[in-house]
Amino acid sequence: MKKLPFNKKQIEEIINDFPTPFHLYDEQGIRSTVRELKKAFVKLPFRNYFAVKALPNPAIMKILYEEGMGMDASSLAELMLCERVGITGGNIMFSSNDTPSSEYKKAKELEAIINLDDFSYINYLEKTVGLPELVCLRYNPGPSLNESSESFIIGKPEEAKFGMTGKQIFEGLVLLKKKGVKRFGLHTMIASNELNINYLIGTATILFELAYKVYKKAGITFEFINLGGGIGIPYRPESQPVDFAKLASGIRNEYEKIQKKGLSPFKIFMENGRVITGPHGYLITRVLHIKNTYKSYIGVDASMANLMRPGMYGAYHHITILGKSDGAKKYDVVGSLCENNDKFAVDRQLPNVSVGDILIIHDTGAHGHAMGFNYNGKLRSAEVLLKTNGKTKLIRRAETVDDYFATLV
Amino acid sequence: MKKLPFNKKQIEEIINDFPTPFHLYDEQGIRSTVRELKKAFVKLPFRNYFAVKALPNPAIMKILYEEGMGMDASSLAELMLCERVGITGGNIMFSSNDTPSSEYKKAKELEAIINLDDFSYINYLEKTVGLPELVCLRYNPGPSLNESSESFIIGKPEEAKFGMTGKQIFEGLVLLKKKGVKRFGLHTMIASNELNINYLIGTATILFELAYKVYKKAGITFEFINLGGGIGIPYRPESQPVDFAKLASGIRNEYEKIQKKGLSPFKIFMENGRVITGPHGYLITRVLHIKNTYKSYIGVDASMANLMRPGMYGAYHHITILGKSDGAKKYDVVGSLCENNDKFAVDRQLPNVSVGDILIIHDTGAHGHAMGFNYNGKLRSAEVLLKTNGKTKLIRRAETVDDYFATLV
Repeated sequence: MKKLPFNKKQIEEIINDFPTPFHLYDEQGIRSTVRELKKAFVKLPFRNYFAVKALPNPAIMKILYEEGMGMDASSLAELMLCERVGITGGNIMFSSNDTPSSEYKKAKELEAIINLDDFSYINYLEKTVGLPELVCLRYNPGPSLNESSESFIIGKPEEAKFGMTGKQIFEGLVLLKKKGVKRFGLHTMIASNELNINYLIGTATILFELAYKVYKKAGITFEFINLGGGIGIPYRPESQPVDFAKLASGIRNEYEKIQKKGLSPFKIFMENGRVITGPHGYLITRVLHIKNTYKSYIGVDASMANLMRPGMYGAYHHITILGKSDGAKKYDVVGSLCENNDKFAVDRQLPNVSVGDILIIHDTGAHGHAMGFNYNGKLRSAEVLLKTNGKTKLIRRAETVDDYFATLV
Repeated sequence: MKKLPFNKKQIEEIINDFPTPFHLYDEQGIRSTVRELKKAFVKLPFRNYFAVKALPNPAIMKILYEEGMGMDASSLAELMLCERVGITGGNIMFSSNDTPSSEYKKAKELEAIINLDDFSYINYLEKTVGLPELVCLRYNPGPSLNESSESFIIGKPEEAKFGMTGKQIFEGLVLLKKKGVKRFGLHTMIASNELNINYLIGTATILFELAYKVYKKAGITFEFINLGGGIGIPYRPESQPVDFAKLASGIRNEYEKIQKKGLSPFKIFMENGRVITGPHGYLITRVLHIKNTYKSYIGVDASMANLMRPGMYGAYHHITILGKSDGAKKYDVVGSLCENNDKFAVDRQLPNVSVGDILIIHDTGAHGHAMGFNYNGKLRSAEVLLKTNGKTKLIRRAETVDDYFATLV
């Protein structure tokens, strides 16, 4: 069983105000998680930059910014979302790849910290908007990593399009220094949705060691080191969340170790999105049809358009039937797309379900609404915030057919 | 080598008018394919209903309707697209699943042919809008099919959420007749992107046999039998397109066979989308960056937001570098999403590419733009029609950040 931050009556009241399907986000839960993370890292000069792509809604970004988080933006639209909330300067880390000049222009205008994905972007950035005083470089450890660990979820780093080789990092820093850049950052992102803290701590080891080598070889030090995101969440009820305190303590060990070697202090950044908002989002959807053929199907009024992860990756999302816990039957939970894999769950054991029942699909607060599409002419749903005072607020309206038609000429 | 319906100069002129990236559709090619298909099936009472989901653009739908095609719609928005083009009545086949009542209302209003996905929808439809005079039922052959063939691409039918069992088809027809329905259709969809015509002809065999059994057992005959879609296209240059004439001849054999058994004539429908428009669409995109780390990367100004199939399914799409054929180098062709699988090609042998080169990604005329999303705040691109007279027309504008922000409240 997964806990819910609301009871049956509350949900029924919310559904009276907002027609299903919609994503419901729990402000209290989000704020608590941010505070727990901050508390765990209190002995380190730590800051998390929220990966905007996980939940690109200004109302959520405002909450996170109030709690002290920066924003990790990856595109023009995400930079403009930051601007809309009034977030600028060092509060934004702009980590993009294959970047068009328009995005660097906006990043420069907002004075965001720019993280360069490739060596060739040094000249590109200089030519496009000029080099800022502070530049961050993204590292890709490549095949060397495979020797030290067997399962970085993001795949083999040397097959990933992101980041630079160690040699390019060295040469890039020297070049940037020569061109007058004064302050430096170092970044990588090699874990994703990772529940094993050893891999997350391993990222710190890799980057801290690289920073030490850079210092010894080129005399260059980093103002900050960004370990990327990647803290996973327990989508399955039997999984355990990452212990922030243990993670922080592991990273602190590495931090102290490298300082003992002689590296001067630097700030530690991360760019977690999923762990911050993921568990605090719920897709609320109603049962339209029960179908029995070769299997039993629960047809709901949401679809892949509202949540892609199960259909796209076969990812597990827990499902609660509101107010029901009795009975046990195996169902496929499906949406209405003419697409075979439009299923929220396959062979899932659930209570006996009836038409009209409310399903709560858990952990949709990250990479949920954000990944939605309009395939089959399906419309993306609303987003509702359950505020700390127990009231609700519509923070994104549902799409209409007019939205779907908007780009037709 | 795959042929292009335009030369370098033409593309350069088009790019002068429309900034990259955009999808370019070749009207002449689309019309030719429709005519070839019609010609192949001329000895049968045949009609194709274009699967709107493949390319839901009114300008394209208008062309196809002019050429005599019906429309296969699967949602409210797709029904409204038909309405917008002036397509109504028996020219629309409404094949949906997990259908909300609002969609049946619209289908009834447009007098579309309604295809019911489940036995329980008979009562649902009756209660919602009343039963029309003509009703179609969707069949799922279930595990029986596995004995007769090993590779229907759509997966095991008994694991698919679509359609009814044979028993439900029988009982459904009897019930509908009792309720006063006078005309019947039969449908299934068990192949997808299939280049082997035996599987496509096999679908006809299955449905014709079922129709015969229904006739013998219940005395009910079908006005039409819809074989679904599924004609594949040769995404790879070494693949061969489906021979329409052979396909038609195979289906005609089955048609004659079943009539010799004593079944009276019926119309034959299909609902192909991909084969009609797929090969006549091209994603035109420009090289922004060349990156060399552990591999060589071509970074273009399109991304998964414009074409999902390679990133989502690992699907092959052929790529031509405009005006280049010399040299040979292995590249990954990537977009700008912060998503590992945002790649149009992996380890693809291409001529030596430079920044500014134009890439033409082939076969994007179906399930291309339609599947795009806004993940990472990326914007979906424009659609341009290359008309038969050689002129171009913008048939969908590119999204702007304002579109992306439109549902924020």
